[in-house]
Amino acid sequence: MERKIVTLGSLHTKHFSAHLDRVRLRNGQITERIRVDHPEAVALVAFTDNNHILMVRQWRYAIARETLEIPAGKVDPGEDPRSCAQRELVEETGYSPGNLVEFLSYFPAIGYSNERIIIYAASGLRRISHSFDEKEISKVEVIPLEKVSDLITNGSIQDGKTIIAISVFQVRKRRGELPAEFFAPE
Amino acid sequence: MERKIVTLGSLHTKHFSAHLDRVRLRNGQITERIRVDHPEAVALVAFTDNNHILMVRQWRYAIARETLEIPAGKVDPGEDPRSCAQRELVEETGYSPGNLVEFLSYFPAIGYSNERIIIYAASGLRRISHSFDEKEISKVEVIPLEKVSDLITNGSIQDGKTIIAISVFQVRKRRGELPAEFFAPE
Repeated sequence: MERKIVTLGSLHTKHFSAHLDRVRLRNGQITERIRVDHPEAVALVAFTDNNHILMVRQWRYAIARETLEIPAGKVDPGEDPRSCAQRELVEETGYSPGNLVEFLSYFPAIGYSNERIIIYAASGLRRISHSFDEKEISKVEVIPLEKVSDLITNGSIQDGKTIIAISVFQVRKRRGELPAEFFAPE
Repeated sequence: MERKIVTLGSLHTKHFSAHLDRVRLRNGQITERIRVDHPEAVALVAFTDNNHILMVRQWRYAIARETLEIPAGKVDPGEDPRSCAQRELVEETGYSPGNLVEFLSYFPAIGYSNERIIIYAASGLRRISHSFDEKEISKVEVIPLEKVSDLITNGSIQDGKTIIAISVFQVRKRRGELPAEFFAPE
């Protein structure tokens, strides 16, 4: 294992922080590591019917471009991830989910961040608002799942959580590992 | 889009840096964002035969635990990603790849990092060393691909790049989107 000797510096926003630590490696050597201390996050594969999902377009400052992604957000302090998933879907798209099934949790950037993302499949959506968070989101779209697969294959979608969610969902569905009652009979 | 007004603080290691920026949002509001400025990285699904891949166990400081992952590493300044993939595989496992096929590139943490990971499938491996980087890696293992899938499903593997690499590889193989010559006839 590796042990922190001292934190040399920190950066803070309202939502998370970054730290520069001096660290002792397993072989005794000393090095410095940046680590991001991040809350849990959620993301949703939200089905408007058996073959279409909700996607959002938003500006991503870290890569300076607009992206097409599944809805997602950070868990607030004291909030449980499932409630966060319901809240984020409403805030980002105006739709409230009837069913939520957690099907994956993972660390997106294990080399320098403790962020864990929990991914849900959502169905039984009900539109409860025609507004969405225009500070973050520029457009909400309903897209066929097969089209999303193609956009991943041709490199148009490069967002990790979107790719992992869609790919794992497809693998699990094919292996019969998702609850059958989740989908309405086609 | 969002525009930087000023950088309020920075942290640096030898390999990458983190910055706190004051930013103007698309609606004119001012906020602060942490962004990690990270080099490109590579990861490999490296086949020792048609059904087994190389995995490494290593300590991950950011989440304070040992993980089982596919081999990976950061691209050095001036290095091309393909050469980096070859170098990292040798350094982490002692095996040199005969074939390398890029099959995915993605942003793992688009909310706060510009890191892009390029994933290769590797075959035709030749063992050229019996040592590996013991500063980073505690063990090299050869594991059936199907077993890796099971470890993802049961939550034992939570590393994003490993999950995305294996899942996308499986989806692409099933859709016939990988070069046929990559695999030796079974």
